[in-house]
Amino acid sequence: MSLHFDLIKKDGRARRGSVSVPHGTFQTPAFMPVGTRGTVKGMTPKQLADTGSEICLGNTYHLNLAPGDKLIAKLGGLHSFMAWDKPILTDSGGFQVFSLPRIGLDEEGVTFKYEKSGKPITLTPEISMKIQQNLGADIVMAFDVCVEFPTTYKAAQEAIYRTDRWLARCKETMTNKHQSLFGIVQGSVYDDLRVVSAQLTIDHDLPGYAIGGVSVGETLDLMMQAVDAAEPHLPEGRPRYLMGVGYPEDIVEAVWRGIDMFDCVLPTRLARSGVVFGRHGRFRVTKGQYRQDKFPIDSQCSCYACEHFSRAYIKHLIGVKEILGSVLTTTHNLTFYQNLMSTLRASIVAGKLDAFRNAFHAEYTAEEQVKKLGLPADPDAKDDLPWDTFHSCIPTHPERLPQ
Amino acid sequence: MSLHFDLIKKDGRARRGSVSVPHGTFQTPAFMPVGTRGTVKGMTPKQLADTGSEICLGNTYHLNLAPGDKLIAKLGGLHSFMAWDKPILTDSGGFQVFSLPRIGLDEEGVTFKYEKSGKPITLTPEISMKIQQNLGADIVMAFDVCVEFPTTYKAAQEAIYRTDRWLARCKETMTNKHQSLFGIVQGSVYDDLRVVSAQLTIDHDLPGYAIGGVSVGETLDLMMQAVDAAEPHLPEGRPRYLMGVGYPEDIVEAVWRGIDMFDCVLPTRLARSGVVFGRHGRFRVTKGQYRQDKFPIDSQCSCYACEHFSRAYIKHLIGVKEILGSVLTTTHNLTFYQNLMSTLRASIVAGKLDAFRNAFHAEYTAEEQVKKLGLPADPDAKDDLPWDTFHSCIPTHPERLPQ
Repeated sequence: MSLHFDLIKKDGRARRGSVSVPHGTFQTPAFMPVGTRGTVKGMTPKQLADTGSEICLGNTYHLNLAPGDKLIAKLGGLHSFMAWDKPILTDSGGFQVFSLPRIGLDEEGVTFKYEKSGKPITLTPEISMKIQQNLGADIVMAFDVCVEFPTTYKAAQEAIYRTDRWLARCKETMTNKHQSLFGIVQGSVYDDLRVVSAQLTIDHDLPGYAIGGVSVGETLDLMMQAVDAAEPHLPEGRPRYLMGVGYPEDIVEAVWRGIDMFDCVLPTRLARSGVVFGRHGRFRVTKGQYRQDKFPIDSQCSCYACEHFSRAYIKHLIGVKEILGSVLTTTHNLTFYQNLMSTLRASIVAGKLDAFRNAFHAEYTAEEQVKKLGLPADPDAKDDLPWDTFHSCIPTHPERLPQ
Repeated sequence: MSLHFDLIKKDGRARRGSVSVPHGTFQTPAFMPVGTRGTVKGMTPKQLADTGSEICLGNTYHLNLAPGDKLIAKLGGLHSFMAWDKPILTDSGGFQVFSLPRIGLDEEGVTFKYEKSGKPITLTPEISMKIQQNLGADIVMAFDVCVEFPTTYKAAQEAIYRTDRWLARCKETMTNKHQSLFGIVQGSVYDDLRVVSAQLTIDHDLPGYAIGGVSVGETLDLMMQAVDAAEPHLPEGRPRYLMGVGYPEDIVEAVWRGIDMFDCVLPTRLARSGVVFGRHGRFRVTKGQYRQDKFPIDSQCSCYACEHFSRAYIKHLIGVKEILGSVLTTTHNLTFYQNLMSTLRASIVAGKLDAFRNAFHAEYTAEEQVKKLGLPADPDAKDDLPWDTFHSCIPTHPERLPQ
């Protein structure tokens, strides 16, 4: 097996570990920035690594359209093409094609219309695997049936069985020994289907497992319900990946429930429209109130953007559509996410995740959301934390946390 | 005087020197990238410095519109605002306003319509100076009358005298002792007017002088004719700046004629449309022929783009409008320009500028252009050069040149 998962420490259901693949090791819980078209938008590989990112994601669907997986293979694979020598994970294209106008969906696969030309394109488990082999990522995802939200029990049920049959075809096709195939648990919001899907999936004995069909418009509590249903049935010795998630508060909740890997376009996409993350939640730096604001986005953050530039400058750049605006907000947002992950890892090691979770929600999450989750909203909750000497419960130098 | 010019070495008319201003020293001949709205498009200050740039330019007109010079002053000035702690030069806004629909132009100043709102805006020598004082650049440019090309003798004659009267008002208004005012020689393509304008301008005894009214649509030989007319009348002990110039071949010719400073949007603007500079001229990396090209833009270049990425990757990025595409081509083009400047400086010190000029044109400039300039187009001309051990006449490690 070309993937090794090392489970270092547990704190409740939460896990601190590391995943080693041919292109290196990444620490878990891990957040993977999304590099849709062979680049994390606005970042050089060097800037991306500087945010603390140890693995990034590529999109099979987009890379197949441009520049094409065969061309990428010819040029030495995705790592070489995008000059990212650390681990890469590619999705299967399943999520994208299920959100496009479909021409056909049957046991064989999916036919859909290409956005621009209207040309019909077919994706099957075999085709997705071949594309992903050409791209050459360390971790590849099974081609699954991702149902929309909300959906009927019957549709969700059919989807988990077809996903299972497709997984068998994926495993049969994926012959590259350097790539590790992850199976995907579906089942929508139906707990019993999540359990069945988890059991069907782990029967294939794969190096890792994902929970899919989330982040499709459901609420946070429904998303966590899906995690709670599936997670206990996943083997402890393999990494678990919650696909397409999410906001910082989603990630904290899912880590607490035993999830190891995350990906999401939010920090990068929101950055380009001027939305940035701070210790007290996210805000739009382009608002009029920041016009003369000489402070950095987050005065405790040590990213390149916060070390050198004011909110006023960044607001100006985004306002006049300067490239540097997106570069700086993306740098900050990804650094914020990676600092959060680092703090989560340190909290698990310290056996303090419960306390951190409460402190995080008290400081960061909106009150309404905290109530919905049934969490204590007591701002004094964080007073007992060992990292309370830091102004924030998300320290920007996580290495200073008690280990 | 807050500007010190050190003339280190002459080779024919060409000069190797250095200019010291409050924010540091830059070596001449120097190329200044243009940071129109408080950022050189696509570059962080760190990336900009890494290209070898030692001074950059800001545009009074654009910065006055957004975010406003008063706001920038409030936030500590342009250096602090854009986090560029090296020298900055600001233009006067004259060039921009003379290219916009004018409502009025009289002895007092210019009134024109703001592009977006149609709101009338007035610029006078006093207003331009006050804006530039708020921006706080090390070098500020006089507000002059820039005539279009072609223009009548009479219009060009009136312009040089008004430019002279306006220069007196600029000098009167510019009271910040840390900023150095440069006067601008006008006179269009009329040699005698260039001579008179040079004489009028140097009578004001300023720390530096510019040749303006070039790069407005005239041919390279007419531009060089203007330099040839004005340059002999400028004092040896002050830096000379040829405004808005230009292509690498223009710069080589102007350096040979004794010019010390240059600025131009070409390397950055062309970069964003996929046009890059190489040792054999510029080319469009988005052309079909580069689709599978695994080589860097310039295999001898040591910039971040050329060290890590293929032409195929950069073509892909520009094709799908990814930010990183512009970042990489801009990085390369500015590095190419700065390597050229560095090589020009080394050639002057080595007393080999004639030979380098011939070799450069033989290798880089199109044959037709070489004929027009009356230059020897003999490709063997470079064989006698000390830097012939380099593949190119523009070495990417100029420090290896014989000094």
